[in-house]
Amino acid sequence: MSTSNSHPRFNSLEELRGALRRLAAERDWDQLHCPKNLAIALSVEAAALLEHFQWMAEDDSARLSPELHAKVREEIADVLLYLVRLADRLDVDLLAAAGEKSDLNARKYPVDKARGSSRKYTEL
Amino acid sequence: MSTSNSHPRFNSLEELRGALRRLAAERDWDQLHCPKNLAIALSVEAAALLEHFQWMAEDDSARLSPELHAKVREEIADVLLYLVRLADRLDVDLLAAAGEKSDLNARKYPVDKARGSSRKYTEL
Amino acid sequence: MSTSNSHPRFNSLEELRGALRRLAAERDWDQLHCPKNLAIALSVEAAALLEHFQWMAEDDSARLSPELHAKVREEIADVLLYLVRLADRLDVDLLAAAGEKSDLNARKYPVDKARGSSRKYTEL
Amino acid sequence: MSTSNSHPRFNSLEELRGALRRLAAERDWDQLHCPKNLAIALSVEAAALLEHFQWMAEDDSARLSPELHAKVREEIADVLLYLVRLADRLDVDLLAAAGEKSDLNARKYPVDKARGSSRKYTEL
Repeated sequence: MSTSNSHPRFNSLEELRGALRRLAAERDWDQLHCPKNLAIALSVEAAALLEHFQWMAEDDSARLSPELHAKVREEIADVLLYLVRLADRLDVDLLAAAGEKSDLNARKYPVDKARGSSRKYTEL
Repeated sequence: MSTSNSHPRFNSLEELRGALRRLAAERDWDQLHCPKNLAIALSVEAAALLEHFQWMAEDDSARLSPELHAKVREEIADVLLYLVRLADRLDVDLLAAAGEKSDLNARKYPVDKARGSSRKYTEL
Repeated sequence: MSTSNSHPRFNSLEELRGALRRLAAERDWDQLHCPKNLAIALSVEAAALLEHFQWMAEDDSARLSPELHAKVREEIADVLLYLVRLADRLDVDLLAAAGEKSDLNARKYPVDKARGSSRKYTEL
Repeated sequence: MSTSNSHPRFNSLEELRGALRRLAAERDWDQLHCPKNLAIALSVEAAALLEHFQWMAEDDSARLSPELHAKVREEIADVLLYLVRLADRLDVDLLAAAGEKSDLNARKYPVDKARGSSRKYTEL
């Protein structure tokens, strides 16, 4: 792997968004990067990430080898890149949207009712 | 929609990660939230997002109605929530990983060769 | 659920393909049903199927309640419908393609080397 | 590509199911092939199929080059293999389930109301 100082270090999602916007603009990708295509790419990358776990026992999935961890980390990055692009094209503020949704989830699954159970988690 | 001050406003991915960590810990979800299951959930939410675009012409996908925009925004938030959880469980620094990957992409698709073409984009 | 004799009973993939072709033609869906859109729909339905298993322990996934089994069965049907439509639009003979691929898999994972291990299964 | 007579030619989904059942049994894959894992694999393969279309204009997706057509055909086969395995593990009769679902769709989207429109298609 490369050393960390050979790469740009983004300090925020806004900085990342700006860098991806320039990357796409310089390459004339704005038509390719319509929301429909970005949503496809996001889904494709999420599945590529999932592929690494498909035959793995659940317990093993928290103990990846360094090689596999590096691959998974790269797929996670791909998902974030497309998510940031898609949110940018749709004028969605990612942190604001996530704040609202996590608040909604906290209310939907009250602590005293949601403990541990997957049934409750999904059917509460 | 609710007003923004009724929800927690996260100022960074770290704050969001901390909030989601507490949400899961309080509900005993740490076993459910093994990386394998989170990768499944991420993929399922990415597909739920994609579903909104599936029969839509590409050009229309940049001009969503307010109702559809609100739904898409919520699905985008769901994807981010699971992505942040998954990265947390695997000790992946999202912005660092994204910085490395976007730098890699910039080198992989040089400006003068990548202009506009989807063929070049994918097969360069 | 409805009794089986209230529905058409297809005796082969060809009969199903013919019925879906008529269904689409009568509704002017041929433009909507371009291969790109059908591939999206297929992926979306496969994820909707996967959603039912996302928080489930692996062992439990072979023992579904009758209610959940009925839902999963319907999602499986949706995946097949889109797969048959997509194959039809691309002039792919499903059984011939599957025969070639399963034969390839049998050679790729020889019995004496592939026993049981998921590592071998994926990295042989 | 190989000639068709070098591969087994399945005459029905039942024959394909039988062959896949033997392939898995001989390799001790029955535990790996729990419904949860097969549903993951199905979703991963559907996304691998979708990947070929992700930056393609909708009209182009019906006119694939021979090389790309061969790749897409192989991904379609993979989706069918996992779908047949999953249906087998859950005792789902694919053609019966598809017959019921296509009948349901025909009633849900009556010819006179569904013509052409994607809005109607999804929101009828």
